[in-house]
Amino acid sequence: MKKIVIFGVGLIGGSFALALKKASATHITGIGRSQESLQEALKLGVIDAFSDTQEANIHAALQDTDLIMIAAPVAQTASILQSIKPHLSSNTVITDAGSTKSDVLACAKEVLGEQFNQFVGGHPIAGAEKSGVTAAMSDLYAGKNIVLTPTAETNKDGVAVVAELWRTCGANVSEMSAETHDGIFAAVSHLPHLLAFALVDDIASRPNAAQLFSFAASGFRDFTRIAGSHPEMWRDISLANKTALLSELDAYQNELSQLKQLLTNEDGAGLQALFNRASTARNAWAKNRQ
Amino acid sequence: MKKIVIFGVGLIGGSFALALKKASATHITGIGRSQESLQEALKLGVIDAFSDTQEANIHAALQDTDLIMIAAPVAQTASILQSIKPHLSSNTVITDAGSTKSDVLACAKEVLGEQFNQFVGGHPIAGAEKSGVTAAMSDLYAGKNIVLTPTAETNKDGVAVVAELWRTCGANVSEMSAETHDGIFAAVSHLPHLLAFALVDDIASRPNAAQLFSFAASGFRDFTRIAGSHPEMWRDISLANKTALLSELDAYQNELSQLKQLLTNEDGAGLQALFNRASTARNAWAKNRQ
Repeated sequence: MKKIVIFGVGLIGGSFALALKKASATHITGIGRSQESLQEALKLGVIDAFSDTQEANIHAALQDTDLIMIAAPVAQTASILQSIKPHLSSNTVITDAGSTKSDVLACAKEVLGEQFNQFVGGHPIAGAEKSGVTAAMSDLYAGKNIVLTPTAETNKDGVAVVAELWRTCGANVSEMSAETHDGIFAAVSHLPHLLAFALVDDIASRPNAAQLFSFAASGFRDFTRIAGSHPEMWRDISLANKTALLSELDAYQNELSQLKQLLTNEDGAGLQALFNRASTARNAWAKNRQ
Repeated sequence: MKKIVIFGVGLIGGSFALALKKASATHITGIGRSQESLQEALKLGVIDAFSDTQEANIHAALQDTDLIMIAAPVAQTASILQSIKPHLSSNTVITDAGSTKSDVLACAKEVLGEQFNQFVGGHPIAGAEKSGVTAAMSDLYAGKNIVLTPTAETNKDGVAVVAELWRTCGANVSEMSAETHDGIFAAVSHLPHLLAFALVDDIASRPNAAQLFSFAASGFRDFTRIAGSHPEMWRDISLANKTALLSELDAYQNELSQLKQLLTNEDGAGLQALFNRASTARNAWAKNRQ
């Protein structure tokens, strides 16, 4: 892999760049909206060159490029693909790092047309509550899961290239359909984020918020850590995975209604059984994860 | 403080004992249901002696006792107070470490009658997802909040004695009414615990639970840490603070309904505004806490 172009050099794109540069000599060009942050990325040695989003400059940047990584907020994916399309050689593999996949694949198919087979959807599962290139680190992906979502049309060599790059970053690569991916992450990632945002907003909006926060302890700290996540990013993820997320919210509200019923009925045995199922599953998961 | 009796020598009672012994020579007697765990506490140097709950033995243990700490699960508070009452000298201060206070004060008033003025309700705000005396540590309370909930009838000297002991453990002591306490902790502690239990139970009950758990990452890990908490303890807390907790669950479900409405309407600006309020408040709280 000689030449890589990354759209959006923040925590995700920047850490991808640092991991690949650490492994082998790779020329990386960053492209983005903010020239200041690209300047910062260059200064930090994350990228070797950068370009703005003017057509002539994108054309120049994409010459002889082996791989294009789209690591910008998912809402920008369509416009980025449109800016790439006219300058895309048939030898270039395109991948992305978006947290949702069905919407990205639909968008790539529409914009890339007959070159859709060059697009490999991807999602690195790595904490992103800190954003920006200054938070980038070469070992962000070490031991983390990366999900690739190839379709029947996707070029198998392209999938192999992207999988190999992620393994070079130290990640565990798995493949599944975009629909399966979006269902899984609605449950284990997107829903918890919305629940944490909702709790903090609920408490922060009260007249006695300051007093409430002053007695919040370590349980609250860990439960709400993800409520510190990037609002724009989570707006995009929520809208992109709307359908799966709404059904997760319905399932969760049913679970809460059952819990309220047990509490209203003062059903101690029922409450203990629910708490016991949860704590047993949580502790087994944590043990198994070590 | 020469002689202390602790009912329930687990994480909370055991850590209280270790902190006081570290500060000065104090004779501590443990009383509880499980003689094995009291034997363990003796072996670990957490207590100097122990007794079972037979009346004659409790009578002997309470002789010349300066302070009685009740650190057993809250559901046992009434029976423990009943076992203490016949042997309680007027010089002995009684306190507790229950996570809910209105129910404990009502119970103490009923059982202790004219000696209710010797009872000082207390709640140490310290992580308790690990339970048992083997998890006890002398610095568990260093820098932590301790809330005392004296009433108009409570003996002021008794409050001063309990406050001083907690300061000896390194804690920050504050006083408020039991009702205020229960409202605050329903919001910042009891509700988050129920929400975390509910999420894990929701996911664990599905046919594809194993696959879902296999892709859960650090956000899920922190959000669900408190779902590993002690089921019996949380059953008791939930039932004891039922009224405040049910109104918290209602407020939270309203918040979730608003969130669902924003998502259904694809109201990106509304979603971003909610996420932004939450992340700003969460990050300000975390910064302020350091």
